[in-house]
Amino acid sequence: MTNPERKVWSQEYSEWFHKVIADVPIYDTRYPVKGTGIWMPFGFRIRKEVLSIIRDELERTGHEEVLFPLLIPEYLLSKESEHIRNFEDEVYWVTHGGKTPLEVKLALRPTSETAMYPMFKLWINAYSDLPLKIFQIVNVFRYETKATRPMIRVREVSTFKEAHTAHATREEAEEQERIGIEVYSRIFERLKIPFLTTTRPDWDKFPGAERSVAFDTVMPDGRVLQIGTVHFLGQGFAKAFDIKYMKSDGNYEYVWQTCYGISERAIAALISVHGDDHGLVLPSEVAPVQVVVIPIVYKGREEEVLKRCREVKDTLERSGLRVAIDDRRDITPGNKYYAWEMKGAPVRVEIGPRDLDNNTAVLVRRDTLSKTHVNVDGVVDEIRKIMIQIDEGLAERSREWMKSMVREVETIEQAKGELDARGGVVELNWCGRTSCGEELEKMIDARILGVPFDKDKGKNEPSLNGAKCAGCNEAATKKIRVARSY
Amino acid sequence: MTNPERKVWSQEYSEWFHKVIADVPIYDTRYPVKGTGIWMPFGFRIRKEVLSIIRDELERTGHEEVLFPLLIPEYLLSKESEHIRNFEDEVYWVTHGGKTPLEVKLALRPTSETAMYPMFKLWINAYSDLPLKIFQIVNVFRYETKATRPMIRVREVSTFKEAHTAHATREEAEEQERIGIEVYSRIFERLKIPFLTTTRPDWDKFPGAERSVAFDTVMPDGRVLQIGTVHFLGQGFAKAFDIKYMKSDGNYEYVWQTCYGISERAIAALISVHGDDHGLVLPSEVAPVQVVVIPIVYKGREEEVLKRCREVKDTLERSGLRVAIDDRRDITPGNKYYAWEMKGAPVRVEIGPRDLDNNTAVLVRRDTLSKTHVNVDGVVDEIRKIMIQIDEGLAERSREWMKSMVREVETIEQAKGELDARGGVVELNWCGRTSCGEELEKMIDARILGVPFDKDKGKNEPSLNGAKCAGCNEAATKKIRVARSY
Repeated sequence: MTNPERKVWSQEYSEWFHKVIADVPIYDTRYPVKGTGIWMPFGFRIRKEVLSIIRDELERTGHEEVLFPLLIPEYLLSKESEHIRNFEDEVYWVTHGGKTPLEVKLALRPTSETAMYPMFKLWINAYSDLPLKIFQIVNVFRYETKATRPMIRVREVSTFKEAHTAHATREEAEEQERIGIEVYSRIFERLKIPFLTTTRPDWDKFPGAERSVAFDTVMPDGRVLQIGTVHFLGQGFAKAFDIKYMKSDGNYEYVWQTCYGISERAIAALISVHGDDHGLVLPSEVAPVQVVVIPIVYKGREEEVLKRCREVKDTLERSGLRVAIDDRRDITPGNKYYAWEMKGAPVRVEIGPRDLDNNTAVLVRRDTLSKTHVNVDGVVDEIRKIMIQIDEGLAERSREWMKSMVREVETIEQAKGELDARGGVVELNWCGRTSCGEELEKMIDARILGVPFDKDKGKNEPSLNGAKCAGCNEAATKKIRVARSY
Repeated sequence: MTNPERKVWSQEYSEWFHKVIADVPIYDTRYPVKGTGIWMPFGFRIRKEVLSIIRDELERTGHEEVLFPLLIPEYLLSKESEHIRNFEDEVYWVTHGGKTPLEVKLALRPTSETAMYPMFKLWINAYSDLPLKIFQIVNVFRYETKATRPMIRVREVSTFKEAHTAHATREEAEEQERIGIEVYSRIFERLKIPFLTTTRPDWDKFPGAERSVAFDTVMPDGRVLQIGTVHFLGQGFAKAFDIKYMKSDGNYEYVWQTCYGISERAIAALISVHGDDHGLVLPSEVAPVQVVVIPIVYKGREEEVLKRCREVKDTLERSGLRVAIDDRRDITPGNKYYAWEMKGAPVRVEIGPRDLDNNTAVLVRRDTLSKTHVNVDGVVDEIRKIMIQIDEGLAERSREWMKSMVREVETIEQAKGELDARGGVVELNWCGRTSCGEELEKMIDARILGVPFDKDKGKNEPSLNGAKCAGCNEAATKKIRVARSY
């Protein structure tokens, strides 16, 4: 992996990812249950910072956090027919308590619609009970039969944020769908993760939803990773779970619902999109350690240097930064640089005897590894400035990366050629028929992500005047995105 | 429930507790799986504040947070023989993924020793890998066959903080045991929950432990609730899981371990110990809303009053307090008082037209419901002062309560009489023999909690010169605590 230029690896990326999560360490994959892993202390701290952004964006838009039980009785999971059809092959079942067979089998939640909505029925009676907007951050389980991949395709999703809302009218629920998409956009913008929003085709919607809009990013190997989804549920679940409210005219109306989810895949993307040969590169907002202070000690002046380093650490901490000092005595500065570059600390401060004499410090930024000499008195401002530069740089680089990975093509051969060569996303014209879509997927050997999501319906609709479907050459009705995905 | 005087209810307390958790609401027990419940938004916020104290005390003593998988393969759960013997009747088993029977049955963790310690074996090789001190906050599962009780006896413990440590020597592990006890003491002191620390008798130790020290509190009905435990594990698990490190002489030594746990029972105790007829009373540190501002509006001056209330709210928030303003228009002030007393907001600020004219505000403290008129300019200081008074009052009242509920007795009849009359804890002399202990428990119809834990061994040992065992009249060797417990 070279820095700052980004190229498409393939095998190389997968090895890099496994090495980084093991070496930092972030996530230990050696736990003896397939498709699970352990969040190690430093990884846990990254996770915490990411969750704190997610919570912040949800809370400021009026979502309240709750916590539901893990176990869902079989009869509830089965209430919405499409939902259970989709999940029945991948649900883990608890069948025994001790040696006693349970009367009702209990599912480990694969997602919590069917746990939450029976309670929505109890909580919602009047118009004044709406809107209801809640979320929880929990583990969910899917018995994946495909090859698992740490944090990306797992059997225990350890970190699933799911929001669920109920509204009085279709319009309010659709407005909430839009807000959900905005919330997720802000989350990914704060993480500097580039994304496309795409309305999934009907055959790839969330089971039970009327419409699913997905956030996709492109990983360094060119494959697409779905990192979030926002679902407009309509009244399907409300009818299955009998969730209704009394309108002013005394009649009852089923509620309109949305739900949206985001998982540790966001963290896998964060690691993968920004990282380089030296390890993690993290936007300052989520770096567990934003500044690491490293004393460059020479015989005779150890204590003096250490003292200054501790003063600088205190100053930085008082200014609100997350700071570590690496004053281990049995490790060379070079090895400390290596360790903290691996951990993605945005700024390194080095202070040696010469800096004492000159009242200076050396600042090294993680993304470019470039050095600046600064006066110690201005160290807080300089570091804040560098962190902004790093963050802007990461955002810029991400945007460029994404731009370079989305291309318009006209024919199936071009689509296949582009995906073979560089991966990413191709956009092409399509007639809109499912059968043709299936054919297209086979011929390109890729997946139809769906139609570009349109924030302002009508306004940005791509013109399809006279365009032909890349699959069947009939009149095209949609621009679709196609990619090879995780 | 009367306030501020505390009496012992019994049935009454149980009803009160159920009503408060439902009305605030804190925890919804209507989820259709026995022994589980839902943390509602306000309850979740209390939980968050409590967990933030727990995290703070653990982090400042060098414990790092991690997150392990939920599922434990049967062969791991069975590795430590005492451990599995104890848990085999109450473990939930996952036997199927979709329709496929699993090759290895997976347990929902009842606690995580057997999930963590195989990883300890991988993480620990050298002396420099020690001490290892981690914790996680997760859900754990026990198939309880006894009657369940919200937050107190549940099948899904939704909030289990478990810390696990490994050390090079017995001495260091025993020192850690002491630190664990100190950490828990500080947590309960910050929550103003009174407690006794008691070394459990051998037959009531954590399965696999060498010694278990428990934190017990006395609930308002006089029954004792175990709210935390600290276990000295010795080398039992280390041997079962082959966790060893290389000593400087090149030989291998098994590590010495401790673990300690605390659950949502701490929150049940928090609610129960402080609450009164009006609902929750919360120490300010854990109150989700520390101050509620209520406008007393009269026709013609609504906007003026509201404006002042919002200014006061802003001032309070800027000072770092958690503040809500209740400016609902369709609710009377009286009903707002009722709602916020129920939610345990430590201080209520009322501002009406007369206060505008006088530049004053009325402060009402939640514990005594007494009122003070203060100048608006000094409102932050006054509120901080009141919060301190409330916190000191709660701590004082708790100490008094506990003191009044622990009595020394000499005979079995006295013990039984005291527990029948008022519950709580009785202390009496005992010979130390298990068979006599069992007899004692039967005769008193109560449980032996154990021996008072002694922070400074030897120093505070109660003198037993010539004392006789209350059970068999042989020479007593221990002072024991006996109680009726949850």
